[in-house]
Amino acid sequence: MFTVYGMADSGNCYKVKLALEQLGLGYRWIETDSTGGATRTAEFLAKNPNGKVPTLQLQDGGFLPESNAILAYLAEGSPLMPVDRLGRARVLQWMFFEQYSHEPYIAVARFIMRYLPSDTPRRAELPRLRERGNQALAVMEQHLRREPYFAAGHYSVADIALYAYTHCADAGGFDLRRFPAVGAWLERVRSQPRHVPLQA
Amino acid sequence: MFTVYGMADSGNCYKVKLALEQLGLGYRWIETDSTGGATRTAEFLAKNPNGKVPTLQLQDGGFLPESNAILAYLAEGSPLMPVDRLGRARVLQWMFFEQYSHEPYIAVARFIMRYLPSDTPRRAELPRLRERGNQALAVMEQHLRREPYFAAGHYSVADIALYAYTHCADAGGFDLRRFPAVGAWLERVRSQPRHVPLQA
Repeated sequence: MFTVYGMADSGNCYKVKLALEQLGLGYRWIETDSTGGATRTAEFLAKNPNGKVPTLQLQDGGFLPESNAILAYLAEGSPLMPVDRLGRARVLQWMFFEQYSHEPYIAVARFIMRYLPSDTPRRAELPRLRERGNQALAVMEQHLRREPYFAAGHYSVADIALYAYTHCADAGGFDLRRFPAVGAWLERVRSQPRHVPLQA
Repeated sequence: MFTVYGMADSGNCYKVKLALEQLGLGYRWIETDSTGGATRTAEFLAKNPNGKVPTLQLQDGGFLPESNAILAYLAEGSPLMPVDRLGRARVLQWMFFEQYSHEPYIAVARFIMRYLPSDTPRRAELPRLRERGNQALAVMEQHLRREPYFAAGHYSVADIALYAYTHCADAGGFDLRRFPAVGAWLERVRSQPRHVPLQA
């Protein structure tokens, strides 16, 4: 039995939930509100010194942070992780793309619009976040015009990682109608067995 | 024979060079100046639509971007990548930490101070970059007080990923003397066989 320390509305935490559900793995969820300071307590920092959710408690009691490292760990030996060297590298390529070139723009724009007051000075960041986020969506669009999924020709944890904040990008002010191949891929991801929605 | 499209002074590109040298793999290096627009040409975007170096050309002619995905690919089957599931997850944990919580602060502070004019308005970003970068160094310090390396008890590509921008953090205004366990780890990394310095 795994334990997930996560915030239900966080895309990074949703990745872990979706993988656990699709892999049929048992878990309990401990709701941990990072916007309310729950990840900065001494008790939580003892679990993850970097103070972030999701953090997965393993069956041996140890803790594994970083959403995409958790995905790779959970998917090992399942159809969600390719077995060949290049297929695995492609999964990682898109998961690093997600954390470096996608999430810091698309998730942060959503955070500013969804969690901060409408007069927050951080709204000044939105034009740059939208520009960079649209660049990431354009890179995805180009790939998805040729391929049904991100890595190895089939659904994998790379798709879970990118689905998490792409499917709710409209909450950050992104217009997904500009990216039809991305839209078709979102539908393919939603049609996978045991898909569960972001509860938000 | 691999081909690396990289910029010699980039820490992300240095990771790939260091791994190739330590693994004894042959490669040629094509210097690609991302600060001068060389990653935004149509020719380069055909190799990596995300327009970033490093990009590795594989032996079959395909292209693999994302420095840490390249490290994982190159290290597969070598002592630089653990074989057990949790050891591999720990390598990924620290590589995702590097790209999300470390590089965007420590590398970007170095970029502003090293590449932009001394009167650039981007200097206003430095206090926040230093605060977040020092948080990342503190997380590393806490880990390295108990462990000699980042994952699996031995030198791995997680150490290469974190060494790249940590060892030159002073160029971004960070004071590494505040982190003695990090300093001792830097020495352990430098003493590994076939270590090569960042040529800068």
